[in-house]
Amino acid sequence: MNTVTELDAADPLASFRDRFVIDDDLVAYFDGNSLGRLPAATRDRLAAFIREEWGHDLIRGWADRWVDLPVAVGGELGTLIGAAAGQTVVADSTSVCLYKLLYAAVDLRPGRTEILAERAGFPTDRYLVESVARARGLEVRLVDDPTDLSRVVSERTALVLLNHVDYRIGLLLDLPALTEQIHEVGALVLWDLCHSAGALPIDLDAAGADLAVGCTYKYLNGGPGAPAFIYVAERHLVDARQPIEGWWSAADMFAMANQYEASPSIRRMLSGTPPVSGILAVQEGVRLTAEAGIEAIRTKSAALTTFALELLDAHGLATVTPREPDLRGGHVTVQHPQAREITAAVAERGVLPDFREPDLIRLGLSPLSTSFAEVEAGIKVLAEVIDRLAP
Amino acid sequence: MNTVTELDAADPLASFRDRFVIDDDLVAYFDGNSLGRLPAATRDRLAAFIREEWGHDLIRGWADRWVDLPVAVGGELGTLIGAAAGQTVVADSTSVCLYKLLYAAVDLRPGRTEILAERAGFPTDRYLVESVARARGLEVRLVDDPTDLSRVVSERTALVLLNHVDYRIGLLLDLPALTEQIHEVGALVLWDLCHSAGALPIDLDAAGADLAVGCTYKYLNGGPGAPAFIYVAERHLVDARQPIEGWWSAADMFAMANQYEASPSIRRMLSGTPPVSGILAVQEGVRLTAEAGIEAIRTKSAALTTFALELLDAHGLATVTPREPDLRGGHVTVQHPQAREITAAVAERGVLPDFREPDLIRLGLSPLSTSFAEVEAGIKVLAEVIDRLAP
Repeated sequence: MNTVTELDAADPLASFRDRFVIDDDLVAYFDGNSLGRLPAATRDRLAAFIREEWGHDLIRGWADRWVDLPVAVGGELGTLIGAAAGQTVVADSTSVCLYKLLYAAVDLRPGRTEILAERAGFPTDRYLVESVARARGLEVRLVDDPTDLSRVVSERTALVLLNHVDYRIGLLLDLPALTEQIHEVGALVLWDLCHSAGALPIDLDAAGADLAVGCTYKYLNGGPGAPAFIYVAERHLVDARQPIEGWWSAADMFAMANQYEASPSIRRMLSGTPPVSGILAVQEGVRLTAEAGIEAIRTKSAALTTFALELLDAHGLATVTPREPDLRGGHVTVQHPQAREITAAVAERGVLPDFREPDLIRLGLSPLSTSFAEVEAGIKVLAEVIDRLAP
Repeated sequence: MNTVTELDAADPLASFRDRFVIDDDLVAYFDGNSLGRLPAATRDRLAAFIREEWGHDLIRGWADRWVDLPVAVGGELGTLIGAAAGQTVVADSTSVCLYKLLYAAVDLRPGRTEILAERAGFPTDRYLVESVARARGLEVRLVDDPTDLSRVVSERTALVLLNHVDYRIGLLLDLPALTEQIHEVGALVLWDLCHSAGALPIDLDAAGADLAVGCTYKYLNGGPGAPAFIYVAERHLVDARQPIEGWWSAADMFAMANQYEASPSIRRMLSGTPPVSGILAVQEGVRLTAEAGIEAIRTKSAALTTFALELLDAHGLATVTPREPDLRGGHVTVQHPQAREITAAVAERGVLPDFREPDLIRLGLSPLSTSFAEVEAGIKVLAEVIDRLAP
């Protein structure tokens, strides 16, 4: 194993850490996959937006610039997920975006009777699948092993909702292969990219994916409660109709027509007035990510998680994350029966991981803002705290 | 008519104008009912939030403070609309909030077959009523005269959606009387407070209102795309179920339970992660409004609109806003066949009103940030531009 000094010195992305606002009160921030750090450019951009755009331009800001932001920033974000222009939009929360796409998907596959989702998927995903299935008269089937769907998808399946990277153990699914399996029976796939967007290369268009949703406040550093994004493959746009039909999704939003007509473009996935400052923060985060390059980010991410797993092994700590780099995302997860107490105890010592029920400690290693030295220092504290636990 | 100097000198709220960031490039800002001005406190609060809370506290901010913001700020906002604690929450966009409440309302009145909405209401309101009615198998009836519903509501009516203040002409409906008329046949009422919240006293609890929704970027000065709010009367909370069931609306959001159980509190109206900076801006706007006092704001608002109507009359300009102060909200509207060109021409001269299809020029007179001198100067420019129009 190289020393951390060597690893950081050899890291081509090391200088990106200086692009973030980082105070010196923490030994290690292992929660960049829950709330990413603040880019300095975002701090400055938001201050200028608040004072000059809102404060000075006032209503003129809408016509001049803001009205196109959801689609414009969606387009920039699309370059990180392999989406050609016009298929991605920034909007709402991930939950609201998921709801819209689940609803649209059912109409895209009329006559089919079930939606598949992962039993271990993020709870909101299952809640929303249950809600939409109940409202639309479909059944929900929960999948135990999402790595092989060939025996569970069928011609009854309207849609499969999959988490690209599992939010607990970090398992990375094979997006192209699973998309193909699902398409073989004529079903659609909706990819939840919350734990992969900004952390690794995704090529939705090349895989022929149908729909996707994702989060921007994790690896894309959009800030607390930053808006989410929606992807709809161009071939589905004309028929994909979501039910929260507001003036922002109408064909001519300012006509305020009597009859609703959905925009022919990806704008049809919008609903109400979008949160401008949130979208601007997403834009800055996306640009920082694009500048570093998503391939370089993935290379560093794999090195960070490999290094973390080696250190955890050396300290004798149990992990549940796949050992093969190609099978995991940007976080590694420790399993320990006293996970909750350990998480609280290491926080007292300046290390912030994430506790997940019932016994998991998640270490999110955001590639742009995390150094190898930080990983080593944080895991050292974690191991010391565990060593000193009352038996 | 008093001089503007006398009117401004006698205005007990005059000093509140200094609490906003106001540049000197505009003669008159008549669009505070479309995008309210930036309070100086909000500029400072957001800068501190971005740098210190997001930048420094990082994920700790959620547990320490942010997690309760939607309900806490909802409670503060509730004091401006006559809502006791626990019935109001800040969330999503107005469109998404409306969708949730329309959906919930249908379940609260099972067996009823129609939803009533105003033919002249805000387009999104009608679009969403149509969408929910279609999905739930109800009919939509459009009302031409919302001031008297006694002949149109019936025991077939599940819900009536009403705009408290009409977004075009400024008509203010009698909220208590109409709520009573609607309740007489056992129907529910959903009040859209977009153009009244923050501009005039509202007493939802006293009127026995059922549901309400509103906007925070107009008179409440929350900023472009600030989140909206939802009100559900306490007696409906246990049965009001909205379909976008995310982890934020679950009874125990961090348990990430297998089965969704809605929170027993107003949190059940949430869905996904809320936009923290947007909610903080709402909080500042609400506090400024509460400090000034909603009764004093209404008094000034009535004086501003009366003054504006007198000036418009003196210039011989046609208006469509009710002449009786008790029958209008905070804006007055000029009607002119060349409204679009006039709006563009006065903007060139530093006066920003709002054009509304097909022939309306809306003058929004936000009480806290608008002086009588500004009203006089702006209307002078408007009259001059109209005088010089090619015949």
